[in-house]
Amino acid sequence: MTIELINTGSELLLGRTLNTHLQWLGRRFADMGHIVSRQVCVPDTGPAIEQAVRESLTRADLMLVTGGLGPTSDDITRELIARLLARPLREDPVVLEQLRQFFAQRNRPMPERNRVQALVPEGALVLANPYGTAPGLAMEVRPNPFRENGQASWLMLLPGPPRELRPMFQEIVVPLIRRVLPEPGEYVCRTLRTTGVGESALQARIGPLLQPLVAQGLDLGYCAHSGRVDVRLAVQTAAAIDLVRTAEIVVRRELSAHLFAEGDVELESVIIQRLTERKETLAVAESCTGGCLAHLLTNVPGASAVFLAGLVTYSNAAKQKFLGVRATTLAAHGAVSEPVARAMAEGVRTRNHATYGLSVTGIAGPGGGTADKPVGTVFLALAGPFPTVVERNYNPTDRETFKQVTAQQALDLLRRHLVNDRAS
Amino acid sequence: MTIELINTGSELLLGRTLNTHLQWLGRRFADMGHIVSRQVCVPDTGPAIEQAVRESLTRADLMLVTGGLGPTSDDITRELIARLLARPLREDPVVLEQLRQFFAQRNRPMPERNRVQALVPEGALVLANPYGTAPGLAMEVRPNPFRENGQASWLMLLPGPPRELRPMFQEIVVPLIRRVLPEPGEYVCRTLRTTGVGESALQARIGPLLQPLVAQGLDLGYCAHSGRVDVRLAVQTAAAIDLVRTAEIVVRRELSAHLFAEGDVELESVIIQRLTERKETLAVAESCTGGCLAHLLTNVPGASAVFLAGLVTYSNAAKQKFLGVRATTLAAHGAVSEPVARAMAEGVRTRNHATYGLSVTGIAGPGGGTADKPVGTVFLALAGPFPTVVERNYNPTDRETFKQVTAQQALDLLRRHLVNDRAS
Repeated sequence: MTIELINTGSELLLGRTLNTHLQWLGRRFADMGHIVSRQVCVPDTGPAIEQAVRESLTRADLMLVTGGLGPTSDDITRELIARLLARPLREDPVVLEQLRQFFAQRNRPMPERNRVQALVPEGALVLANPYGTAPGLAMEVRPNPFRENGQASWLMLLPGPPRELRPMFQEIVVPLIRRVLPEPGEYVCRTLRTTGVGESALQARIGPLLQPLVAQGLDLGYCAHSGRVDVRLAVQTAAAIDLVRTAEIVVRRELSAHLFAEGDVELESVIIQRLTERKETLAVAESCTGGCLAHLLTNVPGASAVFLAGLVTYSNAAKQKFLGVRATTLAAHGAVSEPVARAMAEGVRTRNHATYGLSVTGIAGPGGGTADKPVGTVFLALAGPFPTVVERNYNPTDRETFKQVTAQQALDLLRRHLVNDRAS
Repeated sequence: MTIELINTGSELLLGRTLNTHLQWLGRRFADMGHIVSRQVCVPDTGPAIEQAVRESLTRADLMLVTGGLGPTSDDITRELIARLLARPLREDPVVLEQLRQFFAQRNRPMPERNRVQALVPEGALVLANPYGTAPGLAMEVRPNPFRENGQASWLMLLPGPPRELRPMFQEIVVPLIRRVLPEPGEYVCRTLRTTGVGESALQARIGPLLQPLVAQGLDLGYCAHSGRVDVRLAVQTAAAIDLVRTAEIVVRRELSAHLFAEGDVELESVIIQRLTERKETLAVAESCTGGCLAHLLTNVPGASAVFLAGLVTYSNAAKQKFLGVRATTLAAHGAVSEPVARAMAEGVRTRNHATYGLSVTGIAGPGGGTADKPVGTVFLALAGPFPTVVERNYNPTDRETFKQVTAQQALDLLRRHLVNDRAS
């Protein structure tokens, strides 16, 4: 199976927008046991899109074309593909009705321009888009005039915005691919997620132990993210599944303290799930992470059952008023200190009657560092029905990465407590 | 000038690594007045790389190939290009000495494998790499046997890791391009950022007015993001700069209420800058956005001077305790209501002695909706030295997009006040 991805959009080539489609779709195809062979990005112009689609039609069994399905004048993919494949466009009454409903629900008149989004090339399947106005389209090119032997290809047109493309791919395209395309060989892939250990330190611990399995065909991959390293264990055939099983036992044994999830599960989801199971509650107090910790936790559906409040106390006055941190403590030790982190965690816990209070205070930068406490210094504290725990970390990175990494470290402080507490 | 980018790396196609090269290089080329015409990503295999380079050599004046210059077995770009262009590889004593020094400085023996990195195709320029072991290579293909008339092309090989590629590009490749390639026409590009108006409604307002300018050569593009639409106005030659100027006047006149910035400036940066200039302060109270609003504001360096606190009052108890919302108000109207939004904004303002209090309460979903207030319903309020303003919006999307879009709407509510107040 040859799969190719064509991303259209001048903003991608001008560097105005980061193209995340290859990473996201590449992962989803790998999960299904397929590998994307080639990706190309071309501007929103007729000749460039046509050339890319023609080239791809000579090679690919499945082509995904993203972008250019919107209502504006630079959205030309639909018309161009219809012309290239000589399939007349017809207005689809069901799609038109869905468009009208989309606008009616939002109490807005439907602009006349949006009507082009109801045009469907002859013989194409319409892929519903509940998150936007551009439906996707899928068509089998059979016979395919661009391939020497006329071998069929599938061509799918998907919307450019990731928030529209992703649910459409998961909910509609994946089942369609499973139905119309041949099953891949049994590709087995396990991803184990770790936190609190760097990529090279992690590799130094498990790499040598897994070397014999790699020699037998195990595909071992490491992928570092902000505050997290994923370990990927894969084999291309079901017969080799024991390699993955054996490798997983090794990784679990060596990294047990750092492993927090499998697959795509986020650390914040693990926390919310554990708290829900334990019928416990959480409140957080943030300074330098500025709401990032609360934002991560509240991304999880159902968070409201266990997450009571997040207090982003950026100023000293707010730390005193909302958390009860004493002016003398702030004056004696500074806002970025062990005693203030402790007082913040205990304050946010008591004032919200929460099982746990989690706090973060540090220096995100770029300004505000001192010789004693340089930019990147952070104190994390966890208060609960036990003596409060405080940790000092050092995350010298840019401001946004600092917030992400520090929030992950705070979540991990709570996770380690929940794990150890269950084990005891 | 036709410029093409070829990214090699199986990890990119498997979705294990996000490809940021196009965005970063696309911006740098645009700054120099050039536009990348096409980008392709292929795996680390000989046939795939060779096919991509051959195709590109038929079209491009300048080709950048990234990745595959390392010392390991899947790093094959150097050898492959040398063979394709029939240029023998020779060990360069200067490069070899630099490699030895790289390892000596780090007190590590140089692995024998790294010696391949000193191989240079005949006639190629070596691009020094102070941040890694892989030097870049640049060569003029003259005559170019893959082009019909033998027209020359430049081919440059750059290391894959961004921390090595980026300084090499800035320090060595940019001056080289300026020296060996023709000056670009003066490409002029203006990006105007809008919020509070949908992509198609926006086009309906400015598209017809700009049509005559498009007919004369204006490149007009729209790009929709969560809660934001960018309008791009560009021309390829300095002679046509008046088209951009005229178009900008039209866009500014028609969309003045929605325009918040130019170029890459985020809405939250505009807010922090305006507040800093006005010596005013802000505190926010969030329910459904769960910290997203505070997180956006605190991404801006210097936010601490004007942002006092963010209270993520997820529970009713927290709304009462930290914001002073009355139990009777919550009981009578529900947490998602106009009176509660109002009380939250006023409460967070008074309790923090802030100039402005901004609040958000709504239903992010997936659960919690009713017939009267479906998932996506949200109330935003702004309190200040004026009667409190409340708005009701409806953002029926997935949970994370809901948080992003709603936080943008809250920021825009404050922005509109700051703009109107300045005008009066």
